[in-house]
Amino acid sequence: MWTLTIKEGALEMLERDTPQPGPLDVVVAVRAAGVNAADLMQRLGFYPAPAGAPPDAPGMELAGVVSAVGERVIEPLLGRRVGAIVGGGAQATHCLVPSEHLLFLPEQVSWEEAGGFPEAFSTAYDALVSQGHLATGERVLVSGATGGVGVAGVQIAHALGAEVIAVTRTDEYHAALRALGADETVTLDEVGSLKGVDVVLELLGAAHLGVAQRILNPFARVVVIGVGAGSRVEIDLLNVMRTRSTITGSTLRSRSREEKAHVARLVGDTLVPRWTRGDLQVPLARVFDLRDAEAAYEYFGAPGKFGKVVLRVEGESPLG
Amino acid sequence: MWTLTIKEGALEMLERDTPQPGPLDVVVAVRAAGVNAADLMQRLGFYPAPAGAPPDAPGMELAGVVSAVGERVIEPLLGRRVGAIVGGGAQATHCLVPSEHLLFLPEQVSWEEAGGFPEAFSTAYDALVSQGHLATGERVLVSGATGGVGVAGVQIAHALGAEVIAVTRTDEYHAALRALGADETVTLDEVGSLKGVDVVLELLGAAHLGVAQRILNPFARVVVIGVGAGSRVEIDLLNVMRTRSTITGSTLRSRSREEKAHVARLVGDTLVPRWTRGDLQVPLARVFDLRDAEAAYEYFGAPGKFGKVVLRVEGESPLG
Repeated sequence: MWTLTIKEGALEMLERDTPQPGPLDVVVAVRAAGVNAADLMQRLGFYPAPAGAPPDAPGMELAGVVSAVGERVIEPLLGRRVGAIVGGGAQATHCLVPSEHLLFLPEQVSWEEAGGFPEAFSTAYDALVSQGHLATGERVLVSGATGGVGVAGVQIAHALGAEVIAVTRTDEYHAALRALGADETVTLDEVGSLKGVDVVLELLGAAHLGVAQRILNPFARVVVIGVGAGSRVEIDLLNVMRTRSTITGSTLRSRSREEKAHVARLVGDTLVPRWTRGDLQVPLARVFDLRDAEAAYEYFGAPGKFGKVVLRVEGESPLG
Repeated sequence: MWTLTIKEGALEMLERDTPQPGPLDVVVAVRAAGVNAADLMQRLGFYPAPAGAPPDAPGMELAGVVSAVGERVIEPLLGRRVGAIVGGGAQATHCLVPSEHLLFLPEQVSWEEAGGFPEAFSTAYDALVSQGHLATGERVLVSGATGGVGVAGVQIAHALGAEVIAVTRTDEYHAALRALGADETVTLDEVGSLKGVDVVLELLGAAHLGVAQRILNPFARVVVIGVGAGSRVEIDLLNVMRTRSTITGSTLRSRSREEKAHVARLVGDTLVPRWTRGDLQVPLARVFDLRDAEAAYEYFGAPGKFGKVVLRVEGESPLG
């Protein structure tokens, strides 16, 4: 197999032994793998891979075909079209995945869309529902709404019956966000004039939350998932007390195998059927070949895109 | 009746009509009333009384004897020794209290101890258990541990089987805090060298939380109740994500009649029996006569005390 690796900050394709599945694992022949902020952070040395994941191989989500199955897996998984979140190593021709982490892909979605689904939609669902306890009819503020998790969050909140306010740095993509289900679209400068927010899906960080903390409804929940616009923010504790609001956050990556299985089950039960019906989409900002990962990372790191950046993986040797 | 009032920042005793109880209310002839930070904030104009409470009369907790009962109250309450949290007006000879907010006092406690119990112990219980979901065996950090809510929080956490670390500005009262159940006592300067905290009962605010946020266990809960040492604190959102911790807070004062009844029921069921058995105490920093409220407020506002400041109320005319 071939895998993308990070060596002293440089991306390099290396050939390695294709992994053997453990008793309850599968190996997936990867067809597409999303690029995420975590990959860029890992490259910069800020976000080491969790225990059990390859320490030097980026890539946290993939779609592909099951090519090998562990001896204690009882479902007939060989050959199935699947997606998954992994601790690392997704940007490769093959990747080891715990069988209980698999999502089963709708027939009609392309590999590229599928490769951009697992991390974005699982993260947004976990943040909005499992952490944010989003209820039907509540008002949700999604900051960084044009990014991969942002476009997922807008659609999920809309699908679950919430009123969605999408926050972006510029108004370039406001029409596209409304097409995905946003009821209102504002730029970062306009957030302070909003009112009555129940849940904040915080994908930007300090630059947004510093303002958004002032427009919370009683019992609001702020769920921090991204900090691209600053990780240190001054919080007014009196305001927290007055609104009885909650600030929390989490990453999926650090969670246990069992917790990730739980998230996969929730996403499989609630989002995959909506994806199958065409109620959810994976907007693709741009697709690159795995061999062009350097360009993909550079593109990902620049502002102004809409949706997911995905690497296409074809065959055994992406260098060939 | 006589009541303490605040007029343009000055405390003044005024004679007013004794209130008539509404159908489900009682009137309590007050024997003692605690002084709380909220009273001093209200005097400074920062903390207006909630709807339904007298706008100019301080006092959020009391103990006394039921002297009149509303027509739809079916329990035999007349003459009962009770305590309660109220929205205001406790620092008076008489005070209106919703009957479902009453706590029934153990026989052996003095009026002064009883007058200092309701707000401190209800606030600490609500913060630790209802907001902080404190579980047996967890490690709790109580900042501002020598104050009224602090000494309550140390005892409640200890009684519920938690490991209690009491944080104080100086080491003056460390022995007294250990006698109340603290397993460990540290000064504010030493907090940064602690590790592994599950729940923070935050009674100081920024000066403490700025440091305490770095010593949280996974899934820690920070519950902010007091901000005497600063209300604006820089929070590291990456740390929130990494620890999957939660920052929240609340006051009791702003809650609905139904919510306050719920808190009273919880405290009545869980803490009053322990108080009756002598497992909980109300340490009294100092007791003043109601007519000396000015001195009591001044004493309350100065650092260095241990436990509650309580006003003793005797008879119809505290000026007499």
